[in-house]
Parts: sequence; structure tokens; C-alpha cells
Amino acid sequence: MIPRYSRPEMAAIWSPESRFRIWFEIEAHATSALAEIGVVPKEAADKVWEKGRDAVFDVARIDAIEAVTKHDVIAFLTHLAEIVGPEARFVHQGMTSSDVLDTCLNVQLTQAADILIADLDRLLAALKRRAFEHKLTPTIGRSHGIHAEPVTFGLKLAQAYAEFSRNRERLVAARKEIATCAISGAVGTFANIDPRVEEYVAEKMGLAAEPVSTQVIPRDRHAMFFAVLGVIASSMERLAIEVRHLQRTEVLEAEEFFSEGQKGSSAMPHKRNPVLTENITGLARMVRGYVVPALENVALWHERDISHSSVERMIGPDATVTLDFALARMTGVIDKLLIYPEQMQKNLDRLGGLVHSQRVLLALTQGGTSREDAYRLVQRNAMPVWRGEGDFLTLLKADAEVTAVLKPEQIEDCFDLGYHLKHVDTIFRRVFGEA
Amino acid sequence: MIPRYSRPEMAAIWSPESRFRIWFEIEAHATSALAEIGVVPKEAADKVWEKGRDAVFDVARIDAIEAVTKHDVIAFLTHLAEIVGPEARFVHQGMTSSDVLDTCLNVQLTQAADILIADLDRLLAALKRRAFEHKLTPTIGRSHGIHAEPVTFGLKLAQAYAEFSRNRERLVAARKEIATCAISGAVGTFANIDPRVEEYVAEKMGLAAEPVSTQVIPRDRHAMFFAVLGVIASSMERLAIEVRHLQRTEVLEAEEFFSEGQKGSSAMPHKRNPVLTENITGLARMVRGYVVPALENVALWHERDISHSSVERMIGPDATVTLDFALARMTGVIDKLLIYPEQMQKNLDRLGGLVHSQRVLLALTQGGTSREDAYRLVQRNAMPVWRGEGDFLTLLKADAEVTAVLKPEQIEDCFDLGYHLKHVDTIFRRVFGEA
Amino acid sequence: MIPRYSRPEMAAIWSPESRFRIWFEIEAHATSALAEIGVVPKEAADKVWEKGRDAVFDVARIDAIEAVTKHDVIAFLTHLAEIVGPEARFVHQGMTSSDVLDTCLNVQLTQAADILIADLDRLLAALKRRAFEHKLTPTIGRSHGIHAEPVTFGLKLAQAYAEFSRNRERLVAARKEIATCAISGAVGTFANIDPRVEEYVAEKMGLAAEPVSTQVIPRDRHAMFFAVLGVIASSMERLAIEVRHLQRTEVLEAEEFFSEGQKGSSAMPHKRNPVLTENITGLARMVRGYVVPALENVALWHERDISHSSVERMIGPDATVTLDFALARMTGVIDKLLIYPEQMQKNLDRLGGLVHSQRVLLALTQGGTSREDAYRLVQRNAMPVWRGEGDFLTLLKADAEVTAVLKPEQIEDCFDLGYHLKHVDTIFRRVFGEA
Amino acid sequence: MIPRYSRPEMAAIWSPESRFRIWFEIEAHATSALAEIGVVPKEAADKVWEKGRDAVFDVARIDAIEAVTKHDVIAFLTHLAEIVGPEARFVHQGMTSSDVLDTCLNVQLTQAADILIADLDRLLAALKRRAFEHKLTPTIGRSHGIHAEPVTFGLKLAQAYAEFSRNRERLVAARKEIATCAISGAVGTFANIDPRVEEYVAEKMGLAAEPVSTQVIPRDRHAMFFAVLGVIASSMERLAIEVRHLQRTEVLEAEEFFSEGQKGSSAMPHKRNPVLTENITGLARMVRGYVVPALENVALWHERDISHSSVERMIGPDATVTLDFALARMTGVIDKLLIYPEQMQKNLDRLGGLVHSQRVLLALTQGGTSREDAYRLVQRNAMPVWRGEGDFLTLLKADAEVTAVLKPEQIEDCFDLGYHLKHVDTIFRRVFGEA
Repeated sequence: MIPRYSRPEMAAIWSPESRFRIWFEIEAHATSALAEIGVVPKEAADKVWEKGRDAVFDVARIDAIEAVTKHDVIAFLTHLAEIVGPEARFVHQGMTSSDVLDTCLNVQLTQAADILIADLDRLLAALKRRAFEHKLTPTIGRSHGIHAEPVTFGLKLAQAYAEFSRNRERLVAARKEIATCAISGAVGTFANIDPRVEEYVAEKMGLAAEPVSTQVIPRDRHAMFFAVLGVIASSMERLAIEVRHLQRTEVLEAEEFFSEGQKGSSAMPHKRNPVLTENITGLARMVRGYVVPALENVALWHERDISHSSVERMIGPDATVTLDFALARMTGVIDKLLIYPEQMQKNLDRLGGLVHSQRVLLALTQGGTSREDAYRLVQRNAMPVWRGEGDFLTLLKADAEVTAVLKPEQIEDCFDLGYHLKHVDTIFRRVFGEA
Repeated sequence: MIPRYSRPEMAAIWSPESRFRIWFEIEAHATSALAEIGVVPKEAADKVWEKGRDAVFDVARIDAIEAVTKHDVIAFLTHLAEIVGPEARFVHQGMTSSDVLDTCLNVQLTQAADILIADLDRLLAALKRRAFEHKLTPTIGRSHGIHAEPVTFGLKLAQAYAEFSRNRERLVAARKEIATCAISGAVGTFANIDPRVEEYVAEKMGLAAEPVSTQVIPRDRHAMFFAVLGVIASSMERLAIEVRHLQRTEVLEAEEFFSEGQKGSSAMPHKRNPVLTENITGLARMVRGYVVPALENVALWHERDISHSSVERMIGPDATVTLDFALARMTGVIDKLLIYPEQMQKNLDRLGGLVHSQRVLLALTQGGTSREDAYRLVQRNAMPVWRGEGDFLTLLKADAEVTAVLKPEQIEDCFDLGYHLKHVDTIFRRVFGEA
Repeated sequence: MIPRYSRPEMAAIWSPESRFRIWFEIEAHATSALAEIGVVPKEAADKVWEKGRDAVFDVARIDAIEAVTKHDVIAFLTHLAEIVGPEARFVHQGMTSSDVLDTCLNVQLTQAADILIADLDRLLAALKRRAFEHKLTPTIGRSHGIHAEPVTFGLKLAQAYAEFSRNRERLVAARKEIATCAISGAVGTFANIDPRVEEYVAEKMGLAAEPVSTQVIPRDRHAMFFAVLGVIASSMERLAIEVRHLQRTEVLEAEEFFSEGQKGSSAMPHKRNPVLTENITGLARMVRGYVVPALENVALWHERDISHSSVERMIGPDATVTLDFALARMTGVIDKLLIYPEQMQKNLDRLGGLVHSQRVLLALTQGGTSREDAYRLVQRNAMPVWRGEGDFLTLLKADAEVTAVLKPEQIEDCFDLGYHLKHVDTIFRRVFGEA
Repeated sequence: MIPRYSRPEMAAIWSPESRFRIWFEIEAHATSALAEIGVVPKEAADKVWEKGRDAVFDVARIDAIEAVTKHDVIAFLTHLAEIVGPEARFVHQGMTSSDVLDTCLNVQLTQAADILIADLDRLLAALKRRAFEHKLTPTIGRSHGIHAEPVTFGLKLAQAYAEFSRNRERLVAARKEIATCAISGAVGTFANIDPRVEEYVAEKMGLAAEPVSTQVIPRDRHAMFFAVLGVIASSMERLAIEVRHLQRTEVLEAEEFFSEGQKGSSAMPHKRNPVLTENITGLARMVRGYVVPALENVALWHERDISHSSVERMIGPDATVTLDFALARMTGVIDKLLIYPEQMQKNLDRLGGLVHSQRVLLALTQGGTSREDAYRLVQRNAMPVWRGEGDFLTLLKADAEVTAVLKPEQIEDCFDLGYHLKHVDTIFRRVFGEA
């Protein structure tokens, strides 16, 4: 997470101020719950809320206390006591630091997930709009980077839409994974704190009570969360690479928007580079790179060790801020993407009709030729075209073995572009529910 | 995937014989569907089934053909034509190799997922049985490897049970992710094959039709699948490390079963080592190691490139076979785990009562001492005990500042083990639905 | 490691037969050393060599013994005793299994490294040959996938040559890292075995004595080794992606050799796909995927735990066999690469002279224009060309602000291709030591 | 990289101010070189130095320009022109942004490497001091977490010393990998800039000239650098885990220093946790997590794409700052480690003499018993001791089959601790060159 690739709303979740505010809420709600079941005086809980509700927690002061105690929650509680006064001794009764830290982290992650879900919704909207705009814009489909058969540009975007719809579902599930609260005490036994406190705080913080915790909320939940971010990042990389390919000089079927005043290169004034999607490609590597540390965080020792903490202090913000930035950037790329249908048509025509080779193959087999012979016939007429030696249709019509099976009109029929687009509506209905 | 860490049922899914059998079924069902919609003669479809249903596909023969064509599906189709005869030319009409390959891979992955789900069920059953057996066996809870407060051994297993229940849910979801079928032709447009064929084959193979494919089924699905295997592996590592810790010479609260005739060391005949859980720890690293290649597989070029294929030929079997083996091994470890309650009690008593420090802290604050003062009082009596200089209870009773707040009986009350177990039933009900 | 992506010489290193043969040699040399320093009878050492030198170790028999003892080295020693007779009791005196296992693994890894180094030498030779062949074949250099300025095809290959030369150096260093031998007993203290035995065996096996071992040779050595394989794999991916880009239909400056009888697609007979380099791209992901498990293997507990073992049983063969296969395949690709200079020239000309924009920029600044103004002048003439609206040279000559600084001949001079090739020899001399 | 885990000296390398200062030096040296070979006026070069040498580059101003140009180097050059005046047009002649960016990154990485090497030297010094201090302090060696045979605490530290000595060598080599400079123009051909400029700047900046670059310095160099950081991190994890194990309540042979006023737990005042080494364990995961993105950065497209840039903007600081912090923290842990020889001795005695089982085994075989029989005899006397049923020495003396071979004194001789320490000096001499 660096300012260059951060957006303020997501970054704010991870500020010390936000963290201390959430800590306060957890502690204050827990004190209210304790008051409700009669463990601490109701007046104490009221006092905590009264003094703390609008308090500004002094980050520097808390840091100074931590420098002595070497314990962040104790430092915060000490500072809170300075604000609240003697009633502060009823705060944190029977709780352990992790009750606060883990519940807070999960609040932050659910907030981050909410932003990311909204990001995905915006990206989906952009993809859908452009997909319908180019539903029937023909373009060559490529396998192995080699021309295969025609598709439409809208279909390409429909594929991305379907992929990011899956990612949205995964993220909603991942959000649920980490939306839990634990107030279960030092080793998760509720020895010093009633399970009702956990339920109370969970409900107030919009979380579910963790069914069984140790000192901490189990980290398989977080591993799953970050793994899903890694999958989303990989889908981002796929879409980014698609745009980068389309913008290649030789292809140039689409281009990132190039703004007034922008400079592509300090040395070469002619350049217009797909720098946004290249940037997203790199950011995807980073988000993916956080998956393994998150997986390694699962195997804590016994009822917990604290090795996960430094990892989460870094990947919590790093992964969510970076993905948020990349998603927003990608949405902008799609929204403003310059799309060149003429160039698509020009590329489609480039292979001298070879993209229709399969139809000829099928027509031959339908006409009684064995699959193996048909393949041989088509391939021997295709290879010269590949080398720039002639036109596919002409060559086929001049091949006696071909014309023994197919009439010239039948061969010509195989070269119809519309043939390839007849099921586009079917696919759009599958993906968008409409066509 | 090596024989040493393979079990036959899972390994069989990945044999060439299984693959060719699934290929045949996909091709034959597709031919039936083509016959149903009138594209190929019904007799041809019948002949394919008649000749192929019980055919033994000759792996060596197929390999020999592939050595020439450098294309595995073409090699199979050529061999199939040798078996079926002239009607074979109606097979694979309008399909592309990936229709067969990708649908087959997903069949294999769902079969593998089914075995893994059954593995998890057996592990869950073992965990539950041992958890109830030791529901109230007291043992020390440890944070940071340091004695914290009492828990029960059953609680440790309940935590594992809850974690693996989550893993089961994740795997069921991941199975659904990859249970799709694509018969959509060269670039996914259904240009040469009717979408009804896809729907027909999907239903026959127990899959859902992929809403939109390119030449291939999108690899975010597979990335998600392997990511979930990586999360399960990490949970396995956690449980394995717990057992390894418990078996440490100084702890020795539990031990892997040591069979008659087993030798722990070639040099040291006294050794009994936790080799099974150490092995699982290593296997977890491997399964986790397959996550990143699976994520890198997502960003194929345009409508597909084939870079994912070599990765999947390796991690398909490697990840599923290894995890299956590890899960079965772990189930055996839990089932036969030697558990030593006396040693647990002995360890519990080792810290001279320090594990009750929090209760004393809370009693002091309840008695009116500030949290900070209470902490200081308890800590100053704890540190000598830590150094082996005295017994915690005795020291507390001799501390005037403590006894100014708490009566001797109140201090003694803080040293009650039962106090820590009072909510075990609550937790069990949350986890198992019963206590 | 699967047969499809294995070559026999490398695979043979990892066969059980090879392993048992190396074990025998280690044990027999150690017995000789023990005899030399008088710990065991010389006759015993002689007998071990005499009986074992040409013995065929029965893998099935050893497996059967291991099924009981659950210890592979003990199983081997038991079998060896069956072959050698009573003198076998002098074998393995004071040694621990890891002395044998770890020294054997390092022998295997150095053998594998030797093959990989030879692989690199062949790849380097191919790169050099083709680089000199196309030293002065002009082609467009691309940054961001966008035409930048001219380079030569030989330069591209010279870059690859330099990169793989570095990889060769890294591999030589990595080989040295793992070329160590430990015969230091149960916990590395030489309590039961004289350090001279280690030195003797090390020398005989072509290794260095490990300065200090625990029960095992420290795994940072192996981590480094596998990390280097991961770097080499990443360089392979780079070169593979270069070829895949060059073979794209729209670029087609080079192509993988396409053999007689080969079929590019089951559906589309016209296809010629870069399947070898796509395959290498996938294999690179696998080799890279083994780096993290190797890194995770470093932190063994205390004097060792055995979690590294299962990892190494898999990645030892997987990483070396896969990289060997990929290197050999890449050498074939480079050796037989079809290179199309005419197409390179055609692509060079595609941008209507824009690739010379920098020279015009520099000429303007040399003529007294500020950098910022010069940039603006060049960019405003470049953008129409980019959109296909006119020729760069013509536009520049018609721009009054340009011609105020540069004469028409000066502008024309900026469009000289030879200008870009003047330092090719310098670079070749740096890379190859000759030009 | 977060402030919590940063040290100022390393963090400063990565500040915008440092970056712009290095950019200036590269540009100014290049201008001097251009002046020397007569391409630009000498006065211009002098002016650049004169105005820029002590200039404070205005980060906010540069950011503002970049907001328009979307190009950081152009923004800097524009700002530099504001400082230098008209002569600024001679700056950056024939160079491309990457010449500046890549050379700067490598300067930063070499500076970072120098700090890390110094960190390693301090850690090595601490390890050596404590190793000699405890050269002969006996402690139990453990394999699989199970008592094996005696070692000394100094030996443990000697092993760490040897490992970190290797890491130092690796880092020195990795520093050399990235200590290169490229001033080779837009696509590395030196078309617009003489190779002598590169050589001049390289020498001034303390780097070597990159033999052949594209637009960028090849990223296999950086991949190797970050891979080495990942190996060092893994060694850190190993040492951290060793300390954590030693501090476990049941083991307690060593402890992290616990400062006055420190609090181990908010809930349990008795706690003293190995939080520093747990923290290092987590930081190691992070540094390791940066290896894969660095490897993925190698395969840039053609002469470069910019996807590596965002990755490096993050992992450059993240990996070096985090590792620097972890190394410094580890040095502190080792320097102040509380070491408890009495507890080591107590643990050594815990297994009732079982740790001498191998000596008995060897004595029996030396006495003529077969290895298999000897193993059986020793194991049958060891297993009851393992269960706490008796003392090993007593049982052996009561076993008729044992005493048929060994006299009581011979058995007693096997229980001598000194026997295990006789080669400690040998090992120390190997590791430290002295004993």
C-alpha cells in the first residue's frame, strides 16, 4: 500500500484513528453487555459511552504508552482510562486483547469487502454497457494468439462480465467468512466473560459470533478471504492483458483513453502506451503475492501465537487498498476504452479467409469425406494462404478433390460471417438475463 | 504425486484409461445430441455407443498417433475411428478439442472433490468422536507457546472440527465452481454446434452448462478450486503442528500411535517421533505450492492459449492425490492418537498456579483496585514464580496490598479449575449441535 | 514430474535404483573410512564392497521391509545385510539415517545440476548461432507492445544470451551450495563417528564436508538451489513469451517449426500455434511454484524435523525434470525457429515513420528548441499518423514551426534506419566477446 | 513497509527526496559525459551541477506536473528545467526514462544491500559472541521435537552463524547482480546516446555498465535479488522458531529479554511471551511473499512493458525495510537472550538416560551382536522408560541378553555426557576459524 496506488476511502479504514474508534466501540459495547448481565455497574457503561463517544483518541499518546508496555491494547486502555476516569476499570473485564484486535480486524475487513463489492458492481456495470454497445461488432477470436474464428467484441466483454460476476459471489462469500466476532477471553473458554457478551457485541458490530475461538479467531477464515482477493486479482490480470494485446501496434483494435497533455514516453513523442492495464497487471501480482503469507498464517501454535499479526498489519491494508485501486482503474479503462470496429474488420480479413477453414472441413465431412481426409484437404489449401501465397476461397475452388464433394456455391457459403453470430443473443441471455 | 503419497482410488481418476473413457462419453453423448437435433444420423450415434461402450482404448496406440499429429484429441479420435468405423466421421462435429478436454478435466475434478469431501467427513467423524471422549479432560491452553489458562482437550478438537466443517463447506462450493461443461466450439460462439448439445452433454455428465466460454472454460474457476485446496492444506498443517507440539518430549500430552515393529531412528532405538504429522506438514506445503500456478493460469491470452495445460496435467493429480493422502493419514492420526490426561494435569500444575493470574486480577478490580494497579500487583507476585521462586497462591496471600482488597478465601477461590470449564457445553452445542 | 514432460537421463537420477546405489556407495565408503581409522575390521569394509559393488538392490524387497519398520534407511540396511552377510553389522556404525539421505540427495541434486548446466550450454549455443545469423536483421523494438525504435533480431537473441549466461553462473553457484556431505551422526556432534569419516566420504562422492550440520544438512542450501531454478524458469517464460508474441497472426515475424503431419487444431485445419513456447510458459509456472515450498522447508524444528522430506521427494524430481525438459524444448525452438525478415521490415514500416520521432525531437532541441516545445511539435505531428491520417515525414515538412528550425534534408536524415544499428557490434562484443 | 516495522536509515533510501536526488545525479553525470564527448556544451553541464547540486527538489510540485503528464520522469525534468534554466534542454539528451529509473532503482537496491550486509554482520557478531559464551553448555539435541542426543548450546548458535555466513555471501552476490547501470536509450541500441555515457555514469554511480539492455535492465537480476532476501527471511524464521521453542513453558531453556514495565498480556499478568521472535516469524512470511511477484516480473513483453514498475515501487521498500527491521530485531534478541543452563541440564536428564541409547546399541554391535538384535534389545529396554516405568541404566543392567555381551561398567560408560562434546572444538574451528 503506497499513496500512489491508494484511494482515500479504503485507506481510511486502516488509519490508526479508525482502528482506535472500532476498539472503543467493541470495548464500550462489551461494557454495556456486562452491565446488562450485572457484572459491572450500569453507570460505568454509561460513563464509558458518554466520555468516549466523541473523544478523539490521541495516537501519539497511545504510541508513547506502548513504547513502555510493548502492548498496543494495554496502551489504548490506559489512554482510555485517562479519558473516562475511574469507571474505566470496568472496561475489558474478562476480555483478552485478541477479543478486541480480532473483532476489529474483522470489522475492517468487512468494511473493505463492502467497498470492493461496490467496486465490482461498478466494473460490472461498465462491462455490461460496453458489451451491449458492441454486442454485434465482429472481431477475430484468437487461440494461441493465432486467428481462429470470428466472435464479437461484445462477447469478449460478456465473458469478462461473467467472470467478475463469479468474483462478486466469491467476495460476498469471503466477506461472510470473516464477519465474525470473538469475545471469549484468554483461551476461548469464556471463563471470565459470559458468552452473552460476545453475542451482544457481535450483533452491535454487525457480525456473527464465532462458534469456537481459541485466543483468536481462527485464521483459515482470513486465508480464505485473501485467497479470494488473489483470484479476483488474477481475473483483473486477464482482462488487463486482453486490453494490452488489443492495443499492440499491429493489432490496435482498442486503446486506453489517452488524455490531453499526457506523454507516452520521455524520449519518443509518438507513443501511446497501455500503461493503465500494465499497471494493473503489476498490481495483480502484488495482491496474488499476499495469498501465501495469509495461508501460512493459518497454522498458529496451540491456542495462538502472534506471528500472524505483523503479516496482517501489512496485507490487511496492502491487499484491500491495492485491489480497490486496481478495480477502480480497470473500471475507468473499460468505461473510456477507445474501440475501433474498422480495425477489427481489417484484422478479420487479414488471413485471406482462413478463419472459415472449419466450416469447409465440416461441409466436406457432411458431404461424405472422412474426417481425416477432409482435414488433409483443408490443411493443404490453408498452408499456402498462411504463407501469403493466394486466397483460401480461390484455392479451394481449384482443388479437384474438394470440388468433387462441394459445389462452388457450397464453398462460398462457408465464408459467411453472420453464421458465427447467430447464437450471440443466446449467450447474452445466459450472462445478462437479457439480450 | 508420487506412489508413496498416493491412494489408489484418487490416483485412478487421473489414469490415461479414465481420461479416455471420459472423453469417449463426452463425444458419444454429443453425437447422441447431434442425432437428436438431426445434424447426424441416429444410426451413427448408436454405432458409436455400441462399439465404444465396452471398448478398451489402447493407450500405447493413441500415444503413437499423437507422436505424429502432436495433438492428443486428434490422436484419440483417430483411434476411436479405428474402433467405430466409418460412422466415426460424425463424431466431434462442430466441436473443438477443448470442449472435450475441459469438460473431462471438470469431470475429473468433481470426482476428486467427491473423494475429498468423503475424506473430510471421515476426519470430522474422528475429530468429533475424540472431542466428546475428552470433552472435559483439562489441559493447559497456551498462547505464544506459554501457559495461559486451562482449556479441555475436547475443546481443542472441537476447534479443529469447526475449522474442517468450514473447509467442507468451502470444498462443496469449490466443487460447484468447476462442475461445468462447455461444448461451444472453436471460440465459444456455437457457430458449428447447437447450444442444445452442450446442455444435453452437461446433464448426462452431471455438470452445468458453462454460461459463456471462449475456446475454454474460464480458469478463474480452477484457480478458486485449487485455492480452496490450499486453504484446507493450511488447516491440515495447523492440526499437524498441534499434534507435533503435544508429542514434544517435554510436553508429551499426546502421541501418534506407534506400531509394533516400527523403528523411530536407525541410530537411536529410544525414539518415537511424530513422523506422520511431520509428513502432513510437508504435504501441506506442496498443496499450498500449487495455488500460485493455478492463479497464474487465469490470464490466458484472448480466447485461450494452452499454457494452462501443462500446469493442470501436473497439479490436477498432484494437488488432489496429495491432499487425499494427507487427509486419510490425518484421520488415522486422530483416530488412534494416544492421549495422556495425567500428563496434561501434570503440565497444568507446572506453573505453580500462575495460570490463575487473570482471576486474581479481575477479583482485585472487582474489589475496587484500578486495572493498572491490579496488574502491577499480580505481575510482581507472578514473576518470582516464573523464576521458580515460590508458589503463586502463597505469595499472593503474603502481599499486603493484595490482602488489603481480597480475603484469603477469595484468593483461594481464584484457583478453581472447574471455573474454566463451565461453558464447555455451550461451545460444544455451538459446534456440534449437541453437548 | 510426469512422463509427458520428462527426459530419461534426468528422470533416471530419481529412480529408486539410483537412490539405493548412492546409498550403498555412501555406506561403503564410510565403512572403508571406519576401517582406515581402525574402528571396524578392514575385512568387513572389503566384504561390503565385494558383495555390494555389483549387487542389484531389490526395490520390492526393501519396500516390503519398510512396510514393517516404517523407516526406509533401516529397510535398506536390512536388505544390505541379506546381501553382505554378518559383516554388515559394521556398516552405518555411528551414523544416522540422515547422513545417508542428505548426502544422497545432494549427490542427486549435483548430478541434476550438471545436466541442467549442459542444457543451458546447448541453449546458449543455439541463441548465439541465431544471434549472429540475424545480427543485422532490422526489426522494430517495442515497449508496452507499441512500436518504439528499430533494433535487430540478433540483439533480441543477444539479450536472451546474456540473461541465460547469468543463469548459468547462478546455477553453478547453486550447485556449489548443495554439493556438501554430512556424516556427523544423530545430532551433528560426531559423538559416535569421527569427522575424518565425513571428510573421506565427501571426497569420494565429489562433495565438500558440511562445516556444521544438525541431524541434517541445513535447508537454506536447498532453498537457494530451488530459488535459482525458479529464476531460470522465469527467464524461460520471458523468452517463450517473446516467441509467442512474434508468432501472433498480426505480427508473424517468427514461428515455431511446424512439422510434417502436425495438426494445429482438431477443428480448424488452418492453425499453426506456438504450442511449444506456450507449454514452456506453463512449465515455468510449475518450477516457480516449487520455490515457496523449498523456502518453507528451511525452518525445521531444533536439530531437524522430517517435514522437508515429503516436499523434497516431490520437488527434487519435479523441479529438475521439468526444467530439464523445458530447457531442451526451448533449445529446439530456438534452433529451428522460422524467422521472417521481410515481415519484420513490413512491420517496421507500418507506423509511417513514427519510430523516428525521437530523432526529430533531438534534432529540434539541438537546433535550439526547448525540450518541452520540441516534444509538443513532434507529438502533434505524430498523433494524426497514429490514427492513419498521413505520413510522418510529410507532415513534419509541412509544419512551419518545425521547418523554422530544421531544413527538409535535416528532417529526412532523421529517417535513416542504419543510424540505429551503429552500436550493434559494440553490444555483441560486450555479450559474446566478439562481433 | 509500515512505520511500525521500519528503521529510518533504510526507509530514507525510498523517500521521494532520495529518489529525486539520485535521478539528478544520473542526469547530471550523463550531461557531463555528453559534454565530454562534445554532444552538449560544457557550460550546460556545469550549469546543471551548479544549480542542481544543492537544490531541494519540490516533491509536491513534481507531483502536480505528473498529474498532467502522467509520466514521472518528464515531471521531474520539467521541474529541473525550472531550477536550471534554458541549459536544461541539454539534459536527458538521447536518454529514455528507464535509463534514469532503472539505474536509480539499482542504486537504491545497492544502498539497501549495504545496510542489510551490515545488519548481517551485527547478527553474526552477536551469534559468535553467544556461541563462544556457551560453547560447552550441554543441552539436549532434538529431532522431531523428541530428545535425541546431547549437543551444546554453543553448537546451536554456531549452526546459525554458519547459515547466516552463507546468507551474507548470497547477499554480496545478489548485490552484485543488481549493481548495474543502463544508459542505452529507448530500446537499448545506443542510437541516440554514445555507450561512453553509460560507462561514465556507471563509474560515477558505483555501478557496472549493463552489457546489453532493452529499454530496461533485465529483471532476472532483480528476481535473483529478492529471491535471496526470501532465503535470508527463511533462515530468520528458522532461528526465530528455535527461540520460540526454547521459551515454551515446558522447555524454558532460553527467553527473550523482558524489559521493565513490559506487559505480556492484557488479561494474564503472569505472561512472558516470545513476541519478538513471533513477530520475526511473521515478517519472514512477508519477505518470502515478495519473491513470487519478483519472479513474475521477469517476463516483460518485448523490449519492456511497465508491469514491473508497480511491483517494484512496493516490494523495493517493503522487502528491504522489513528485512532490515527483522535482522536488527533478531540481533537484539540474540544479544540479550536469557539463557538457562540449569534448565538445559534438567531437561537433558528428563528422559532417564534414554538419550544414550545409541551408544548402548553401538557397544552391543561392537561386542558382536547383530545390528538388528542390538536394536531390538535396546528398544525393549527403552520403551518402558519412555512410559515413565523405570530408569534406562537399571533396566539394561537387568537384561540378561544385554549383560551377556556387555559388562556393567561397559554399560555405565555409555552414559557419559563428555563423550558427546569431544568434537565441539573441531566444529567451532570449521565455522569460526578458531575454537
